[in-house]
Amino acid sequence: MAHGASVQTIQWVGDHVVILDQTQLPLATVYRDLRTSADLIHAIQSMQIRGAPALGVAGAMGVALAAQQLPDDDPAAFTEQLGHMAEAIADARPTAVNLSWGVHEMLRRLAAHGCGTVQQQRQFLACEAQRMLQEDVAANRRLSDAGAVLLPQAGNVLTHCNAGALATAGYGTALGVIRSAVAAGKQIHVYADETRPLLQGARLTAWELVEDGIPTTLITDTMAGHFLRKGDIACVVVGADRIAANGDVANKVGTYGVAVLAKENGVPFYVAAPVSTIDLCLPNGDAIPIEERDASEVTTIGSTRVAPLGVEVANPAFDVTPARYVTAIITDAGVVYPPYEESLPKVIRSEQ
Amino acid sequence: MAHGASVQTIQWVGDHVVILDQTQLPLATVYRDLRTSADLIHAIQSMQIRGAPALGVAGAMGVALAAQQLPDDDPAAFTEQLGHMAEAIADARPTAVNLSWGVHEMLRRLAAHGCGTVQQQRQFLACEAQRMLQEDVAANRRLSDAGAVLLPQAGNVLTHCNAGALATAGYGTALGVIRSAVAAGKQIHVYADETRPLLQGARLTAWELVEDGIPTTLITDTMAGHFLRKGDIACVVVGADRIAANGDVANKVGTYGVAVLAKENGVPFYVAAPVSTIDLCLPNGDAIPIEERDASEVTTIGSTRVAPLGVEVANPAFDVTPARYVTAIITDAGVVYPPYEESLPKVIRSEQ
Repeated sequence: MAHGASVQTIQWVGDHVVILDQTQLPLATVYRDLRTSADLIHAIQSMQIRGAPALGVAGAMGVALAAQQLPDDDPAAFTEQLGHMAEAIADARPTAVNLSWGVHEMLRRLAAHGCGTVQQQRQFLACEAQRMLQEDVAANRRLSDAGAVLLPQAGNVLTHCNAGALATAGYGTALGVIRSAVAAGKQIHVYADETRPLLQGARLTAWELVEDGIPTTLITDTMAGHFLRKGDIACVVVGADRIAANGDVANKVGTYGVAVLAKENGVPFYVAAPVSTIDLCLPNGDAIPIEERDASEVTTIGSTRVAPLGVEVANPAFDVTPARYVTAIITDAGVVYPPYEESLPKVIRSEQ
Repeated sequence: MAHGASVQTIQWVGDHVVILDQTQLPLATVYRDLRTSADLIHAIQSMQIRGAPALGVAGAMGVALAAQQLPDDDPAAFTEQLGHMAEAIADARPTAVNLSWGVHEMLRRLAAHGCGTVQQQRQFLACEAQRMLQEDVAANRRLSDAGAVLLPQAGNVLTHCNAGALATAGYGTALGVIRSAVAAGKQIHVYADETRPLLQGARLTAWELVEDGIPTTLITDTMAGHFLRKGDIACVVVGADRIAANGDVANKVGTYGVAVLAKENGVPFYVAAPVSTIDLCLPNGDAIPIEERDASEVTTIGSTRVAPLGVEVANPAFDVTPARYVTAIITDAGVVYPPYEESLPKVIRSEQ
C-alpha cells in the first residue's frame, strides 16, 4: 500500500498496545502485544519502537496502559501511582523530548478533564491516547505538505536514520516530506544513509521506501560526503529528537556530520519535526542529554562479531547539530527559518 | 608481540607467496598459500590482502610468482608473457597506485638488471620482491618517525580504515606514526572509525592496536563528527591510496567526511603514505579512478542481511579529499606541507 499506510507502528487495541517490532525489520514483520507499562518501557529501551514522534505516542499510550493496570478501589492512590508510573515511562530514554512530552500531555489532559471514577479515567486516557496518535498523523501530514515545496521538482534527496512512518504514528516527518513531494508529482530519488550502529536507514528507511515504490539508493554513512561533494544531492532532510531554543538539533548520531558536509557543499539541510520536538526550556544543544547505549551495538551486527575482544567502545546514540548548519526547520505549524531564537517561540505559540 | 611485529601481512616462502587472509580477522588468523598470479589477483580482489603499500608489495610478488609459473624454454616468450601477466596484476584493483607501481618497479629492475636465463630472471625477481618488502617496512619506519613528532605529547588521535601493519609489508603508515609516537613515550589514545562497509577499522585497526596494547576506542563512522566537535580529538591521521600532483588524496570512502569535520573543528588532518603513493601524472583528484564494489558488501554483514530486497545500492570504495583539507602529508622522504604542487615533486626527486 502506498505512502507507508501499510505500516502500523503503534496501535491501541481493546485494552492494550500493539507495536510493530522494528528490531526484526526488514527480515520479518512481527507485531507485539504490550500489556503493562513495564512491557512498554522494555519495548522502548530495546528500540522495538523508536523515533521521536512515535515515542511521544508511546508515552501517551503508556499512561493509558498504566491506568489499566492499577486497582480501581482508591482514586487517590490511583492518581499517585499513575504519576509514578508515568515518570518511569518518561525516563525510559533521555534524548527525545517527545516521550516526556507525550506522557505529560496525557497527565495534563487528565487533570483538565477532571477526576471522575478510576473507570472513567481509564476510559478517558485510552481515548486520549488514540486521539494523540491521530493528532501525530495529522501533524505529520501538515509538516510534510509544508516541507514538500522545499524539495526540487526532480533530484536526489539524502536522509539519515529513519524519520518515516515507523518513527511516527504514521506517514513520517522527513520521509513524510518526501512522500508529499512524490504525491505532488515531484521526481524524487532518495539516498538513504544506512545509519550505524543500529542501521535504521538500511533496515527501516530503505524498507519503507521500497514498499512505497520510491526510488532509493542505500549507502553506508561513509559515502554521504562523497555524493554531496560530487554534486549529486539536491538537499538533505532529517528528523529530530529534540530542538533547543536556539535551533540546535539533537538527532541520530551522524546527523551533525551530514549537516557539516551539506553546508560545505552548498546543499540545503532541512530538519522535519513536529512542534512537540521543540524544547524551549533548553537554551542550546549543549544542554540536551545524549544517551550512551551498549557497546554490543557497535561490536556485533546480527550474529557476527566484528571487533576484537578487549577493545573499548563508545556508543553515543545522538549528536547535536548547531543551528548554523540548519537551513530551515519544517514543523506542523509551518517552515521556520533563522534566527531560530525568534522564529521557534512563534510556532510554539501558534500551536497553543 | 609489540608494534605489530607479530603480523606477517605478506611473505615470500620458497617459491610462492603466503598472505594473512584479512577477511577472516579478527575472529581467525588464517594464512593462505598463493601459488599463481591468478591466486594473487583473487586474493587482491576479494581483499584478503589490501592497503595501498601492501598492494605495492603484492604487485611485486605477483611478478615474481608469474615468473615461477612460466615455462623456461624460451626467454623471449617468457619476457612477453611476463609482461601480459604483470599488467593483469596491475589492473586487479584500480584506485591504489601502489599496486601498479610495485608491478612496474619490478619490470624496471628486471630490465635494468639485464636478461640472463629464465632461471636467473626467476631468481632475480624472487629476490627483488623480498627486497621491496624490506624497503616498504623501512619506508614505513622512516615516515612513522617523521610523523610521530606531529602527534601531541598526550591526547586522542582519530584514524579511519586500516593503515597499519596489515595495510603494508609491516609497521604501517598512519598506525606506524602512532606506534612511533607511543615508542617515543607519547600517551596516545586512538579513536578508530569502524569504516563501513568492510569494517577495516573494527576488524583490523582495533585488532592491531589491541594486540600492541595501545589504548583504543572503537566508534562507528557516524560518531567521528560528534567527538571532533566535542574537542576530544587532537589530530587525525589516515593513509592514502593515491595522491595527485596537487595534493588531493584518494583514500577509503569516508576519509573526505572526516577531513571536512576535522577542518571545521580546527583539528589537524594528516595523511601518511610512502612516496610510491604519489602519482604526479594526475593533476588532481578528479582524475583518480574510484573502484565501485559489489552491493552485497553494503546489504549483508557477516551472515546477516541488513537491507530489504529490491533496494538499489551504491558502493564506491574510495573518495577524494581535496588538498585544502590536508594539513600535511607524512612521507618516507619527510613531512610535506602545502602548496603541494611545489612540495610533492621535491620529495619524489629526493627519492630518486
